Parts: sequence; C-alpha cells; structure tokens
Amino acid sequence: MPARNIRLTAEYDGTEYHGWQSQTNAVTVQNVIANAVKRLTTEDVVITGAGRTDAGVHALAQTISFITSSGIPPESFAAALNSCLPDDIIIKSSVEAEASFNARFSARGKSYRYIMYNSLQPSAILRNRAWHVKYPLNLDLMKKAALNFAGTHDFTSFMASGSKIKDAVRTLYESELSIVESCLNGLPLIIYDVAGNGFLYNMVRIITGTLVEVGMGKLLPEDIPVILDARNRKRAGKTAPPKGLYLCEVFYDV
Amino acid sequence: MPARNIRLTAEYDGTEYHGWQSQTNAVTVQNVIANAVKRLTTEDVVITGAGRTDAGVHALAQTISFITSSGIPPESFAAALNSCLPDDIIIKSSVEAEASFNARFSARGKSYRYIMYNSLQPSAILRNRAWHVKYPLNLDLMKKAALNFAGTHDFTSFMASGSKIKDAVRTLYESELSIVESCLNGLPLIIYDVAGNGFLYNMVRIITGTLVEVGMGKLLPEDIPVILDARNRKRAGKTAPPKGLYLCEVFYDV
Repeated sequence: MPARNIRLTAEYDGTEYHGWQSQTNAVTVQNVIANAVKRLTTEDVVITGAGRTDAGVHALAQTISFITSSGIPPESFAAALNSCLPDDIIIKSSVEAEASFNARFSARGKSYRYIMYNSLQPSAILRNRAWHVKYPLNLDLMKKAALNFAGTHDFTSFMASGSKIKDAVRTLYESELSIVESCLNGLPLIIYDVAGNGFLYNMVRIITGTLVEVGMGKLLPEDIPVILDARNRKRAGKTAPPKGLYLCEVFYDV
Repeated sequence: MPARNIRLTAEYDGTEYHGWQSQTNAVTVQNVIANAVKRLTTEDVVITGAGRTDAGVHALAQTISFITSSGIPPESFAAALNSCLPDDIIIKSSVEAEASFNARFSARGKSYRYIMYNSLQPSAILRNRAWHVKYPLNLDLMKKAALNFAGTHDFTSFMASGSKIKDAVRTLYESELSIVESCLNGLPLIIYDVAGNGFLYNMVRIITGTLVEVGMGKLLPEDIPVILDARNRKRAGKTAPPKGLYLCEVFYDV
C-alpha cells in the first residue's frame, strides 16, 4: 500500500496518565495510542499530537496524525483502535488527511476549558474533573478579569518559569468566565473558556490560578494588564492543578 | 458522654465499590464509612443508610445515621471523617439528629437522576458517570413516555424479578426527561429525573431501560400504562447499567 496520512480525533481522561508525551518509564497517552496502532498495523509509527497535555489534563478533541502503509481503510481506524484501547482513551473519528497535514505543525490555534467549583467540601463525583476551591470567590470580579486576557499580549508573566520560548506574544480570541450548574452533582461550575493562536507552557493553568486570586480578593481585574506588562512569572497567580483542564479543540485551515 | 444520634450527608462515586451494603469479602461504601467512624470514635457503630445503592451507582446526598457516645461535636464529624476517607467518598455535612431519627426508616421518599448520552462513540470523560447509548434515540417519544410513570401505580413490572416485596404500589411525584449539554464534554446529556415515596429494587434502572426502548422505537409512550397494568417484569425493558444512576436526595419530615 502507498503511505497514507491518518488524522485522528481523541478524547481522553488524563487522570491515569503521565501526560501526552512519550516517556520511557511512565504510561503516557501517546505511548498507549502508538502501541494500539502498532498492534493493528504491525508498524512502528510516529504519532504526532497537536497539544502536549500534562499529567492529569484531559482532552475532548486532541488531534493526532500518523503515516501508515497499512491497508486498513482510514475511516475504520477509529473503531479498530477503540477495540484495543483502554476505556479512558477513545478515538472519536479517523479520516485520511492530505500528505502535508501534521497535527502539531498545521495547527492554527486551540481552545481550552478549565472547570472549577466553589464549595466548602470537595465533590467525590468531580474529584478528577474539576478544581475544588474552598475559599469564597467573587465571580463578578473573576468575569471582569478574564476579559482582560483577550487580544494580543506578551504572556511571559503567564508562562512556566524555565520555559525557553523567546517570543511569548500570543493572541487570545476568547477569554471568558461563565457559571453553569453541573448536571452530575448540581454544584455551580465556574468555567473558564479560552481560545487562541497558541499557548505557552502552563499558560491556561497560570491564567486560571490568577483569576482565582482575583476571586479571592488578592488581585483586582485592573491588575491583569499590569501583570501582563511586567513580563514576570512571579507577578501572576499560582498554577491551577491539571485536573480541571480540558483541551477542547484544535483549529486548522483545512 | 450520653449517646447521640448523628446524621450525615454523603456524596460518593460508586465506581470502585460493591454497592452501599456491607459485605464480608468486598469493599462497600457502608464498610468504608463504618471503618472511618471506628477510627475516630473507637466504637463499633451500626451505620444506617437511606438507600442501598448497587455496585457502580453514585450518590450525591446519601443520608446516613448512627449512634455514638463519642465526645466529638456533631458538626465536626464531616471534616474528621473526610480526613480518613478516600477521595471518592465525601461527607458533605454532619449534624445531631433527634433520638428517633433513622436514615432508612424515617425516610419519606427519595429522588434519583439517571444520565445517558447518545453518540456513536463512547465518551472517555463520562465513562463511569453516564450510560452510553449508541442507537439513535427519539427524545420526544422518551419525554412523553417518562410522564406516564408519574402518579400512583403498581410497579411490579418495574421491579427486579425475584424481589420478595408484596406491595409494589408506589407514588412518583416527578418523572421527567430533559436534555442538557454536558459542560465536561459538550455532548447532549439525556437526564431522567424521578422522585417518589419509595422505589422497588432496580426500579429506576428498569424504567430507564424501558424509556430507551421507547427512544429506539421498540415501544410506544402509550405502551407504558399497558406494561404497568401487566404487573409482569418481562413486559418492561432491560435494566439500564448502574453507572448512570445517582441517588440525589432523601426526603424526611424533619
């Protein structure tokens, strides 16, 4: 068979994995999917993912590409892979992509959702799905603060210290906080939705941690532009835990 | 200390437990909570739960009572128990109850929620939280059928065969199907909410399984009264799996 480029969309629960990226001594989502592809095709393929999610981070639509010479019809990969994947990783769709398509390098942007809830006691049902914040939060101030991240900014203050990225300028198309009642346990969920042309390491989690500090009264919405201008990680809030973060969508031109 | 009656409200994720009820060779929610109480009070207390949830069934507000001579203030049990419970069982509140209060026998009714979703592929995020139905469902017909369960009926057709209950007449105050978008993965969730003065063994799961057969076109909404009249388990649909079921609330006079 001639080589074909396959594009997968995957949903996974990141709780049990050491993140997306292959590691020698830890179970990662990339490893598990690569092993499943090998089981089907007997090929050692290189699996490329659009977003390198950290340990505990979830994905609703991670985009993955790989090149195979297998005769398996592209559309059949989803069901075939699901039959050899654990039930916390699901391939939602599989299609043939153009030869030039690369899940990572063709990506034009991504969207993420971060879910929190504010209650005295944690929730058993949501324990690996959302961040439990027990201090009372002022949601109106958090909503105002979230809007200040939209647009084009240098996000150095919201990048994990030690990152080697030189150009930290990114454009966020959406940065919005909303409240929705959970149908799983009735608690009001605090949802931060963000979409942009690119994200720095830990950027969404640092923005979320900063929004929570606004909610707690440690920072004001007006402080956000000042923190952005400072280009200093120490000025922003703490990094929110991974379990509340979901990679929602990856944008492509095609 | 004089004996005191303590009332707890607990949320749990039933995935890892062999149900509520104590068993000798299996880990149950009742066992785990009784062990935590013993660790705190050094007493072997009898823990009574309002609803004996099956393996895999969740609870948002299971009500529990037990009598203790411990000097621990009633309101402090919640935090103290949470410090020795696993994170899939959370005590939401603890209060002192009247001496006559019994979580099971004082209960006047309960409400349950059953969550399903309808999609070609299952969801990794919702895999232990909701029932995945892959056949296309007609939701309007399911909504109509759900309303037919409200009121006072003999629910023999909706009771697990082999049950020894003689009087299967129960009153449902609410029996309603609605559609809500999941904020965890964006899928439309099909939610069946039911409240009543009592429930037979597997009753909510058999009603839900029957609603899904209506959605699939195997039964009509008008068949529900006929199935109720038949007083025959074989006339109703299959029992829906436990993972979509949540014990939501237990009603008491006080």
